[in-house]
Amino acid sequence: MKKKLLYIFLLLIFLLNLAHAQQLTLKPLESDKITPGMTEVMDPEVKIVQPGITDSDAPSDAIILFDGLDVNSEWEDSQGAPTKWIVEDGALVCVKGSGIIKTKRKFSDVQLHIEWRTPAEVSGGGQGRGNSGVFLQEIYEVQVLDSYNNRTYRHGQAGSLYKQHAPLVNVSRKPGEWQTYDIIYTAPTFKSDSTTYSTPPKVTVFHNGVLIQNNVSLRGPTVYVGIPEYFVMKHGAASLMLQDHGNPVAYRNIWIREL
Amino acid sequence: MKKKLLYIFLLLIFLLNLAHAQQLTLKPLESDKITPGMTEVMDPEVKIVQPGITDSDAPSDAIILFDGLDVNSEWEDSQGAPTKWIVEDGALVCVKGSGIIKTKRKFSDVQLHIEWRTPAEVSGGGQGRGNSGVFLQEIYEVQVLDSYNNRTYRHGQAGSLYKQHAPLVNVSRKPGEWQTYDIIYTAPTFKSDSTTYSTPPKVTVFHNGVLIQNNVSLRGPTVYVGIPEYFVMKHGAASLMLQDHGNPVAYRNIWIREL
Amino acid sequence: MKKKLLYIFLLLIFLLNLAHAQQLTLKPLESDKITPGMTEVMDPEVKIVQPGITDSDAPSDAIILFDGLDVNSEWEDSQGAPTKWIVEDGALVCVKGSGIIKTKRKFSDVQLHIEWRTPAEVSGGGQGRGNSGVFLQEIYEVQVLDSYNNRTYRHGQAGSLYKQHAPLVNVSRKPGEWQTYDIIYTAPTFKSDSTTYSTPPKVTVFHNGVLIQNNVSLRGPTVYVGIPEYFVMKHGAASLMLQDHGNPVAYRNIWIREL
Amino acid sequence: MKKKLLYIFLLLIFLLNLAHAQQLTLKPLESDKITPGMTEVMDPEVKIVQPGITDSDAPSDAIILFDGLDVNSEWEDSQGAPTKWIVEDGALVCVKGSGIIKTKRKFSDVQLHIEWRTPAEVSGGGQGRGNSGVFLQEIYEVQVLDSYNNRTYRHGQAGSLYKQHAPLVNVSRKPGEWQTYDIIYTAPTFKSDSTTYSTPPKVTVFHNGVLIQNNVSLRGPTVYVGIPEYFVMKHGAASLMLQDHGNPVAYRNIWIREL
Repeated sequence: MKKKLLYIFLLLIFLLNLAHAQQLTLKPLESDKITPGMTEVMDPEVKIVQPGITDSDAPSDAIILFDGLDVNSEWEDSQGAPTKWIVEDGALVCVKGSGIIKTKRKFSDVQLHIEWRTPAEVSGGGQGRGNSGVFLQEIYEVQVLDSYNNRTYRHGQAGSLYKQHAPLVNVSRKPGEWQTYDIIYTAPTFKSDSTTYSTPPKVTVFHNGVLIQNNVSLRGPTVYVGIPEYFVMKHGAASLMLQDHGNPVAYRNIWIREL
Repeated sequence: MKKKLLYIFLLLIFLLNLAHAQQLTLKPLESDKITPGMTEVMDPEVKIVQPGITDSDAPSDAIILFDGLDVNSEWEDSQGAPTKWIVEDGALVCVKGSGIIKTKRKFSDVQLHIEWRTPAEVSGGGQGRGNSGVFLQEIYEVQVLDSYNNRTYRHGQAGSLYKQHAPLVNVSRKPGEWQTYDIIYTAPTFKSDSTTYSTPPKVTVFHNGVLIQNNVSLRGPTVYVGIPEYFVMKHGAASLMLQDHGNPVAYRNIWIREL
Repeated sequence: MKKKLLYIFLLLIFLLNLAHAQQLTLKPLESDKITPGMTEVMDPEVKIVQPGITDSDAPSDAIILFDGLDVNSEWEDSQGAPTKWIVEDGALVCVKGSGIIKTKRKFSDVQLHIEWRTPAEVSGGGQGRGNSGVFLQEIYEVQVLDSYNNRTYRHGQAGSLYKQHAPLVNVSRKPGEWQTYDIIYTAPTFKSDSTTYSTPPKVTVFHNGVLIQNNVSLRGPTVYVGIPEYFVMKHGAASLMLQDHGNPVAYRNIWIREL
Repeated sequence: MKKKLLYIFLLLIFLLNLAHAQQLTLKPLESDKITPGMTEVMDPEVKIVQPGITDSDAPSDAIILFDGLDVNSEWEDSQGAPTKWIVEDGALVCVKGSGIIKTKRKFSDVQLHIEWRTPAEVSGGGQGRGNSGVFLQEIYEVQVLDSYNNRTYRHGQAGSLYKQHAPLVNVSRKPGEWQTYDIIYTAPTFKSDSTTYSTPPKVTVFHNGVLIQNNVSLRGPTVYVGIPEYFVMKHGAASLMLQDHGNPVAYRNIWIREL
């Protein structure tokens, strides 16, 4: 009885579809014999993932890179030694002069969630205020900066792909408040010459829930001085890296999913 | 004094960058004369947007399509008349047989946040359980379905681009629980023949915070029966549409940003 | 003296450029210090290739797949045995029932030049007249057919990517006349599931010097019956293949360049 | 009788296809009911174009921009006045100091065939020898240069997209010999900010029959000094332009097809 009802609904929606915008513009010879089942594939089953309690919480298939307690299990400094960055009130805080930290694991295509906070007490201006950075595969930077009432160059503010793509909008919170980046990263592929991309790195970024980079292509690695195209060099999977730019920027709730 | 310090830091990071991965692979003739300022652009200033309180809340530049109270200001039925869908406990609930609802406004490229809930009391199976749909530009469907312990065809479950792209993973919550979609949509452009895309529609979807569609290209409009390529027809801006598939699926907190 | 003249010319063109359309829309801080030499890279030198006598003749870096004399050095049948196709008046002619031929070498990205001729004496109609096919990586067909005054389905005529993309225009010569295809092929890359493309195969085709396919993406392998998306399966380098469709179609002057 | 034969052949190829590589990897529920006719579309008929006598000759739908006789019907100088370039032995020759010439017609997506010759008598070196340029939409240059035994910077030699993409190989003929470019150009589309591409300009180039640029994306207009990204500015259809760089470079057999 229920099956009959279902059938009627499916028929209804079928007719509705036909009636609606779904007008054939190219009509195959035997289009009238096409059935719904011809475009219905059961296997393989799509893998089940348990979502986090909120959308910012790690789902079941994520790797937890920082949970508020321990930094040394997943991170190390540029020399492969334990970092001098400190864990304070559940946050991982950059200590000036201690250098970058990077994950022991190496990644290619990923979804990354990361939360960050610039110092509540403002000092410096432009690039000198609350500066750090999230480096994808060690060489592609999503800028972290206090960009609240702190004008700097377009391609250098928070959420920029540093010196390559300005964010679509500036969604910065006040210094001292936690902010989020949700990032989709697609690693590049290379031509046989090793210095040209077949497909460039692509990045999507949401800043505090707002889209600021929509699958933009990178021209090359992030460079402070120079033209990115001239720095392209073939690479494979690499670490996620956080920058020490001399400011005590804090991070928390960092998780990543391999795509 | 502070400026001096800043300068030293910038120099430091500059040297660090040079030392690190940033190796020139193609060396321009006068590369040594390139300065940081040559890739620093101040104007125009990036537009400022106030984020929502949480990442699911509407930012300041969003259009609120449903705020829990009123449906008629932004939505209408397929005939342009007031809908029979009802507002109940802050949710917009589909009433069987009342047909689709669509926004009075028309959209092209957008970021969309929408929350949905399938009935807590489970009845039916497969496509017959908790079925509705979010139609971008009226003809491209992101499937809404109770896909919790409810197997159906891959390209037809929750988060699929119906009959075209299965979701990367199944992140469904239990029936009766609220779920979120965060969608980025890029409208197609058309060749002069009007029946071929120059650039196809592209869609990114997060389901409960997890990436399930990454800038995938659509082959044509959503069709229940047939091959999407044969249904392509030039169109411009169009409404956001929610489907009546006979189940009392509920929606809330719907906001959209024009990109 | 000559150098001075050159310098003046370069300066002239520089000023001309500035005066012309080249208006800075985003002005970097130190744009006035940018010099021409900053975007001039000498090394590595671009590899030198000797062009053929005409544009249809093989350049120095091409692999000659058929030179009018011998078929067995580069081609074999589906079983790896010598083919029964015959060489006649400098042309390689399909013998009905002898099956496909394919190259012993395997290819990925290539530029391919191939000339073909359907029988001067017309017999049959539609798909039955002068039918053969150029299969890239064994599974992606550029259709060969006598499409001169011989209507068939759009996606099945000469120059179509069989059942996927109709040619932009029909540039067919009369049966019995030699025709050319100049093809650029970019091989696909695959996602980890092995049944989805990361980047789909892409094909450009010139037919008798006229562009008929412009870097179109294939949806999957060529299939006579079915929907290409459902047939995607990870593969690597593969042979170039020519089809036996029962008609004595002839080929000549076949050369290929690895990209 | 013939029809029967055709049917048998079609069946044969069908079975062959099934037997060959065409293995279903995703099996739809009713795949066994799919028929060939479901993917065969007759209308609209593909437009018929008469090819030229050779592949370098203009097909029937091309606009002849220079036929060896007259320059003034299709071309003008930068001020819209008749050009001082001269027609000599069927060739259109640049006269030093007379400035660029551009087509009176404006174009968007095109296929372009153009032949060019640098002076047989060599003088100057690097950019100073046989320099001219084919500008697509007035601002995107395919470099024309005597690059035979005349080293210059990679992105500035013949066939480069000037200062953006070096050619894949150097296929230059000797000075004094005629050379060909066959170009496919896809015009850019722009974001609402007018200074960012939605889809960048794309260019494919064959030099003397050899692929040297494969659908590469331009970063912005061609600039002699500066970074192309900073010069992007929304534009529509525009002229084809040939450069006066002070050398008597000659052109002939110029035809273009609107895509």
